[in-house]
Amino acid sequence: MANLGQGVNVSAITSPLVWEHVQPAAARRLLTGAIDAFAERGFQATTTRDIASRAGMSPAALYVHYPSKERLLFEISLYGHRAALEILSEADAGDSPADRLRGMVSAFTAWHAEHHTIARVVQYELAALSPEHLAEVATIRRAISAKVENVLGDGVSDGTFAVDDLHGTTLAVLSLSIDVARWYDPVRRAAPRELGQLYADLALRMVAA
Amino acid sequence: MANLGQGVNVSAITSPLVWEHVQPAAARRLLTGAIDAFAERGFQATTTRDIASRAGMSPAALYVHYPSKERLLFEISLYGHRAALEILSEADAGDSPADRLRGMVSAFTAWHAEHHTIARVVQYELAALSPEHLAEVATIRRAISAKVENVLGDGVSDGTFAVDDLHGTTLAVLSLSIDVARWYDPVRRAAPRELGQLYADLALRMVAA
Repeated sequence: MANLGQGVNVSAITSPLVWEHVQPAAARRLLTGAIDAFAERGFQATTTRDIASRAGMSPAALYVHYPSKERLLFEISLYGHRAALEILSEADAGDSPADRLRGMVSAFTAWHAEHHTIARVVQYELAALSPEHLAEVATIRRAISAKVENVLGDGVSDGTFAVDDLHGTTLAVLSLSIDVARWYDPVRRAAPRELGQLYADLALRMVAA
Repeated sequence: MANLGQGVNVSAITSPLVWEHVQPAAARRLLTGAIDAFAERGFQATTTRDIASRAGMSPAALYVHYPSKERLLFEISLYGHRAALEILSEADAGDSPADRLRGMVSAFTAWHAEHHTIARVVQYELAALSPEHLAEVATIRRAISAKVENVLGDGVSDGTFAVDDLHGTTLAVLSLSIDVARWYDPVRRAAPRELGQLYADLALRMVAA
């Protein structure tokens, strides 16, 4: 994997989300059909019939693979959150807190631009998860926040960063990247990687001592 | 209206959105019922029957006041966008670009925390508007962006700010505030006004020369 010199792997930005781990192919078609349907109409307005027909299947065949529409949302949400955490972890590779933050914000922003459809479903449909599933996803969300809070804390310790409210600033840094999924339009906007670099600059300025 | 010394009016932050301009009271009840229903279930999954029953009315009675569910969404969207633009315009009152930006980000952030329910509907259901209605709302959205881009440009001109990508940075400053509506939880999070002050500090650091 080519390295851009800022802790950002090319593959982490440009490769599409792949669902090869979802087997068999019918289950995979249902899952990608559900992402499209949830993104277009929202979870509540999507029927299992919609999802099945996007996968070229009957509603009854859907239940062979997934016990409920909520289970599909959970699989999507789990995968999306795990992918986002992995992107952050891979990018957390620089020698200094500033390099690490640059790499993380850059990759996290580019990911939310590249994968804005799944990111929207993942971010805006949390309330539709069952309490048990929401708790599982919340654990990953806390790990994502902890990654960013950790690098900010390291920068404060070594004097690179000056941050009064570590938790509030962590949330703001994450917000910058996550909100990209709301407005990103691949036709009209900057390429994901350029956007990532701009946002990394802005985040560094937000916290620099 | 008390002034906090940073161009932020107390009333602009703390007063609930009022719908007194919507007359008669039945139309107002339908509109607030629609906000709650859209926020809970999304526009697509909400029926006119849901909305009417929240207003204590029959579905037929709804059509006396609004020709369609989309018309309700449009009224909500129009009002929410106009309110957000007004908040920004009122706050754009300081003597220097830095004071103006501080006031604007502070008020805009606090508004998105205070009014997170309507802000979510307004931001996440744009795609459900008719093309004509979307065009009308888009005009207000451009005016909101222009407000922020204008103060950033003034700061660059007088040397207070250093901004390479004026349009991209404007979008990032707006994102910070708007994304508050996604995660804001009045029980667990900072008060809207405190959050506004933190975000104003962060935005100023993002652009300061």
